[in-house]
Amino acid sequence: MDQIRSVRLAEPPREPAAVDTLSLVERYRAVRTLSEALAAPLSDADATLQSMEDASPAKWHLAHTTWFFETFILRERGAARFDDDWPFLFNSYYEAEGERIARFSRGMLSRPSLAQVLDYRAHVDAAMERALDDPACVELVGLGLAHEQQHQELLLTDIKHALWSNPLGPALWSPPPLETTEPVATGWIEHPGGIASIGYAGPGFAFDCEGPRHQVLLQPFALADRLVTNAEWDAFIAQGGYRTAALWLSDGWAWVKANDVHAPLYWSGEDHFTLAGWLPRDPAAPVSHISYYEADAFAAWAGARLPTEAEWEAAARGADPASGNQLDSAGPVAPVGSASLFGDCWQWTRSAYLPHPRFKAAEGAVGEYNGKFMSGQFVLKGASCATPRGHSRASYRNFFQPDKRWQFTGLRLAKDI
Amino acid sequence: MDQIRSVRLAEPPREPAAVDTLSLVERYRAVRTLSEALAAPLSDADATLQSMEDASPAKWHLAHTTWFFETFILRERGAARFDDDWPFLFNSYYEAEGERIARFSRGMLSRPSLAQVLDYRAHVDAAMERALDDPACVELVGLGLAHEQQHQELLLTDIKHALWSNPLGPALWSPPPLETTEPVATGWIEHPGGIASIGYAGPGFAFDCEGPRHQVLLQPFALADRLVTNAEWDAFIAQGGYRTAALWLSDGWAWVKANDVHAPLYWSGEDHFTLAGWLPRDPAAPVSHISYYEADAFAAWAGARLPTEAEWEAAARGADPASGNQLDSAGPVAPVGSASLFGDCWQWTRSAYLPHPRFKAAEGAVGEYNGKFMSGQFVLKGASCATPRGHSRASYRNFFQPDKRWQFTGLRLAKDI
Amino acid sequence: MDQIRSVRLAEPPREPAAVDTLSLVERYRAVRTLSEALAAPLSDADATLQSMEDASPAKWHLAHTTWFFETFILRERGAARFDDDWPFLFNSYYEAEGERIARFSRGMLSRPSLAQVLDYRAHVDAAMERALDDPACVELVGLGLAHEQQHQELLLTDIKHALWSNPLGPALWSPPPLETTEPVATGWIEHPGGIASIGYAGPGFAFDCEGPRHQVLLQPFALADRLVTNAEWDAFIAQGGYRTAALWLSDGWAWVKANDVHAPLYWSGEDHFTLAGWLPRDPAAPVSHISYYEADAFAAWAGARLPTEAEWEAAARGADPASGNQLDSAGPVAPVGSASLFGDCWQWTRSAYLPHPRFKAAEGAVGEYNGKFMSGQFVLKGASCATPRGHSRASYRNFFQPDKRWQFTGLRLAKDI
Amino acid sequence: MDQIRSVRLAEPPREPAAVDTLSLVERYRAVRTLSEALAAPLSDADATLQSMEDASPAKWHLAHTTWFFETFILRERGAARFDDDWPFLFNSYYEAEGERIARFSRGMLSRPSLAQVLDYRAHVDAAMERALDDPACVELVGLGLAHEQQHQELLLTDIKHALWSNPLGPALWSPPPLETTEPVATGWIEHPGGIASIGYAGPGFAFDCEGPRHQVLLQPFALADRLVTNAEWDAFIAQGGYRTAALWLSDGWAWVKANDVHAPLYWSGEDHFTLAGWLPRDPAAPVSHISYYEADAFAAWAGARLPTEAEWEAAARGADPASGNQLDSAGPVAPVGSASLFGDCWQWTRSAYLPHPRFKAAEGAVGEYNGKFMSGQFVLKGASCATPRGHSRASYRNFFQPDKRWQFTGLRLAKDI
Repeated sequence: MDQIRSVRLAEPPREPAAVDTLSLVERYRAVRTLSEALAAPLSDADATLQSMEDASPAKWHLAHTTWFFETFILRERGAARFDDDWPFLFNSYYEAEGERIARFSRGMLSRPSLAQVLDYRAHVDAAMERALDDPACVELVGLGLAHEQQHQELLLTDIKHALWSNPLGPALWSPPPLETTEPVATGWIEHPGGIASIGYAGPGFAFDCEGPRHQVLLQPFALADRLVTNAEWDAFIAQGGYRTAALWLSDGWAWVKANDVHAPLYWSGEDHFTLAGWLPRDPAAPVSHISYYEADAFAAWAGARLPTEAEWEAAARGADPASGNQLDSAGPVAPVGSASLFGDCWQWTRSAYLPHPRFKAAEGAVGEYNGKFMSGQFVLKGASCATPRGHSRASYRNFFQPDKRWQFTGLRLAKDI
Repeated sequence: MDQIRSVRLAEPPREPAAVDTLSLVERYRAVRTLSEALAAPLSDADATLQSMEDASPAKWHLAHTTWFFETFILRERGAARFDDDWPFLFNSYYEAEGERIARFSRGMLSRPSLAQVLDYRAHVDAAMERALDDPACVELVGLGLAHEQQHQELLLTDIKHALWSNPLGPALWSPPPLETTEPVATGWIEHPGGIASIGYAGPGFAFDCEGPRHQVLLQPFALADRLVTNAEWDAFIAQGGYRTAALWLSDGWAWVKANDVHAPLYWSGEDHFTLAGWLPRDPAAPVSHISYYEADAFAAWAGARLPTEAEWEAAARGADPASGNQLDSAGPVAPVGSASLFGDCWQWTRSAYLPHPRFKAAEGAVGEYNGKFMSGQFVLKGASCATPRGHSRASYRNFFQPDKRWQFTGLRLAKDI
Repeated sequence: MDQIRSVRLAEPPREPAAVDTLSLVERYRAVRTLSEALAAPLSDADATLQSMEDASPAKWHLAHTTWFFETFILRERGAARFDDDWPFLFNSYYEAEGERIARFSRGMLSRPSLAQVLDYRAHVDAAMERALDDPACVELVGLGLAHEQQHQELLLTDIKHALWSNPLGPALWSPPPLETTEPVATGWIEHPGGIASIGYAGPGFAFDCEGPRHQVLLQPFALADRLVTNAEWDAFIAQGGYRTAALWLSDGWAWVKANDVHAPLYWSGEDHFTLAGWLPRDPAAPVSHISYYEADAFAAWAGARLPTEAEWEAAARGADPASGNQLDSAGPVAPVGSASLFGDCWQWTRSAYLPHPRFKAAEGAVGEYNGKFMSGQFVLKGASCATPRGHSRASYRNFFQPDKRWQFTGLRLAKDI
Repeated sequence: MDQIRSVRLAEPPREPAAVDTLSLVERYRAVRTLSEALAAPLSDADATLQSMEDASPAKWHLAHTTWFFETFILRERGAARFDDDWPFLFNSYYEAEGERIARFSRGMLSRPSLAQVLDYRAHVDAAMERALDDPACVELVGLGLAHEQQHQELLLTDIKHALWSNPLGPALWSPPPLETTEPVATGWIEHPGGIASIGYAGPGFAFDCEGPRHQVLLQPFALADRLVTNAEWDAFIAQGGYRTAALWLSDGWAWVKANDVHAPLYWSGEDHFTLAGWLPRDPAAPVSHISYYEADAFAAWAGARLPTEAEWEAAARGADPASGNQLDSAGPVAPVGSASLFGDCWQWTRSAYLPHPRFKAAEGAVGEYNGKFMSGQFVLKGASCATPRGHSRASYRNFFQPDKRWQFTGLRLAKDI
């Protein structure tokens, strides 16, 4: 191992050509419209629920994404606030933007009503139409739209958690026709290792934490060609996965015991809770709503491991990030299994969320977007069934604490070769 | 003190003549209508809020009181449930009635909607009209109506807390015209002590814990002829009341320090939060929203003490419990100060909530109504501005833990003579 | 019930003649010597243990009782402190005596060593010998000795808890020869009710909270002539006592579930932990180490109730408080069962610990001794096997929160007649 | 950035020649003797203290390290246990070795006494003398000695925390003569980047997590030639470091606010607590007892960053890991500042503690040593004044959660070049 391995460059670094042929105005309208479509089945009361500190009310997501445009674009252009009291309500975590409501008090906002929040959106959208022509705004609008797409996914996962907290288990949408997919054996995509380029470099939009692009040295590895399935998870449970300390990280085992964990979140018997209510699980569909601890323990049980972020990203170079099971429109979303590296579930990697070499956070309040979360979290790659199509990239870095499960999180195995 | 004091009987034991000339049907309709009138200004989202574990959503109060009639009267008469899943949602604490939603999850009930809950009420009310003719139901209906009146008060105090938790401080009703009352000096009502009869005995309704009627031996005492005012509380604060350990019970002092308490709940500067939003305080109005700990410390500071339950009840014998500032209809409620022993604020006594001699809880699930709470709580007497007029009595025993403040709780001083 | 019952005075109010023929010096020496004898089997490490916030290290008890004499007697007489830093360590809760170590940090006091604490005791004892002649000190010395006797009992119960926390279950003393007592049927001591005098009035020492003596009106009742036994408790368990919500106070049931309680503290199988290590239980001995919640639930299960403080005290008038199984010297202590109202176990009453009518706390720091604890606690009467004989009285008011079990707490049933 | 950088190999991979010329028996005796010398100033009570869940009693360290030899070596050779009850007490976290005392109950072990634990050590040492000749044991003995050296450092940091928890601030040793060192300007050691070999490969002992040796690709960087000093930290405080949200990670800022952090652990005014009691700080000495959050915030304030583990390790290649201010014998230890990369303080890196590529944990119970802690922790490199000299290596991976401060933790700045 002490000689330099003869390295082969992975294919020439290249981001998939921007499929985005829409104008900025068209994109702005499309994103903003989708948010409201996702919230359309919600009553004012539904949209007010906050079921845990990690989650936010749907109403809050609708307002906070609007506050982002109002604060970082319209305010800079001299526009008056829609309501001077609202920034206190709808700032998320930007210290530079002043005091804000305690995170776990967002669920107390029965006022403003959902209708008033929609008025706020219309008001800001009208003002934004004028700003979209301004070249100085293009970059921030791109950030604002990517930000809103993130909140679209959170809106779905947060309302799913809230509805699950209701013993009646109400559905947001009618269930889709049940298609049971065929189980497929796992294949392995081999990668020769060597020096790979990682991180974003391209003409379009990416979050600051995705760069700078840089080189890493990889050892040969293989990545499974599909996600782990519900049926495989059932086997893990049946073979005592949740009762075998040796499979678990120390923190993970403590978490299992403290929370009496014995299945993925949302599982109950043969069913699981979905945005279309309680439904039978498809054994061949990807398992979802698992923590990093569970993913890591499963991989140990399966004699494999989780991929690193760099491995995943190197393997994904050239793949189409807009492929697979991702969100195109409002309606029931659920992992079904597809051949793409992207979609269905975010995939836990064994890499901590830390800065890429020479990373610098953006200046000003928007610099709080990513960098300040670089402790205690793991990177997830890919995209989920609830990720708006077009939002993710190979270099995209989603991140959560290792005990979090309310996102559509799954796993793809890796192994050394 | 070792000789028997020559005792003088207080006036012959007597409950005020029942002012209630309404028929049971009329009373049923009046109570049920008032609940809905109180909730009328609430949106579905407002009615879904639960701001702390002690409180419940307005929607829940409306449904729970209905569940009570459905469970203890209609079910006994063979009626089917409106919805078989709802008892799980709307049982409060009756162990004999089976499993129920965790108390602090009541705030997740965006479904059923407020409109569906009102349908439930209409459905049960229609069925109840037939039951009200049945003499076998009279007693339980009386209990159900008293129960609903208790929840009317809780509905008001709970929604007050929820709206206060919203940084916008929304108002339920328009503020009443501000009338500043004149401060009055405290007079003292003397009582000679001796043997007094305490507890309920009468033809009408009373809760089981109010009886049996029994005799107690009192020493001479005096009771203030009015409640402590906001102005007096300001003086307590100004003289360091919240910083002087010697005035406080040990638990109270720990509570002050742990919660950084320095004023009654809902105070901020010169204002306080009311059901009509943030308003200036009237210095001459009774102070409200104080804990037992605060009441006890204030009394120590004032060189007086809190009355015992028996003293208060003996002094109230013959007074009209339907007098004073109590709730007659939907609209802003607030303590204003009146000459009555009843109304404005519930009054902390220094008596723990414990069984009267020879108390027996009722049989069956309704026996869980009172007796099982007989530890850790203090008795409050009188009634508040949010208590439906006609609900309280001299023998009425309200009770809360000594740190609770979200009810309209105040104090009336007592002293030995 | 509304006529005045024809009342019969209980026997003329009388405290048992003071059996105490010892001089103050002799009493001082006896008490101080006993404390050290109780601690004699402890290593420095044993004496440093604090196993929970309610408990204190043995070393701390030895020092704190000494601090009491040094502070309230020697300092008043102008004596210098043994060590100026120690009051911070050994003040318990006297706010008037300044800042002090956080209660749960008492277990960090490996220094001063046990030997140094014994030096401190010797130093203060020498100085006290001179003060004991001063008539001005008599009352405070009496308080100081009673205070030290309380801490003798706490020293035993605290070290019992600490040793039990050690998986090795070490013993403080060799076990006494096992004498299994014969079970006895419960007899009932009837009391006619009427006006009784309660509270202390006498020439000797009593705590401020035991007075003033005053009259109460009792209804006829009966008190069991012995304590509830281990065998009876086994039956309670066998019949589902810990699984039957209907038997429990609401707070008690929550406590059972939150702490997974299914037996008295210190029970394991057929054994229980004692100051002589793990030993088989004697079925006929009084059950001990139960909470108020358990006592109350047991009484409900047995179709009886707990006595009130006044009933117990009225029944004890004339009984010899120095009788029964109490502490005479260092050595294993355990409830064995005796015919006395006093001894074996402190007996939970259903009375909250609240002020007697016209109670006034003493002036100055010693006024913090009792009055400030008058919320959230229940009164226990009698004395236990760990109470120094001569310490208790009929009017004695021991008090603890209803969930506390580490004292020798048991129960004596009562019923209405 | 997309071309492969022309890389220059760092110096040929090489571990410093083993300075260890001692035989295994000599090393065994030296390590075991040092543990007892460190504990020599402790009383039985001192050695029993556990001041927080992260820490363990000194007595426990002495016994646990002995349990390690008894369990993994003597038991395998058929030896009987010294005491069959003790494994329950002295197993740390090896799930495969069965149930064990709850971590935070270790402080209840007044028994066995310190003297008994020393007997246990003597007993095991005698048996080990025979095992040390057995070649089959060499590897496990090496692990056991490295393990004991880790616990020597923990013994010192744990007892430091315990003594600091005592308001008297007792000293373990007399203070050394105060030498104030001269402040030195920071120089920067530049590294050209390129492919570097990281991880252990050598003939001697290393922990499993230090390997396998592998290559990483580094960008050019510079490392400060000394640690950050107390004086520099004073400047950070003076310029509002602890009050400026923008400097902190989000978790770090929450930690600062929740714990009201405003200085390193053990600081008070101009003094800090040391194993020789409270002493004035030397401004030119390295700052110590800081969390990762503080280190990261300081680096941001200083316009620099923390090094990665790989950078630090690459820079340390060729340096003597046995140099600098490390532990040679019992006596006061404190950071003083030295020119070595090693010693004084463990240095936080911005690298999470995660497996090196192709890492495999050892088989059996000793496989629980490292791998199961690979979540939620950051790597620290170097060694501290409390690290036994000879214990650390360039590849050594110390790791703690980012909020931990009771170790001798400091920081060395890095920057991009």
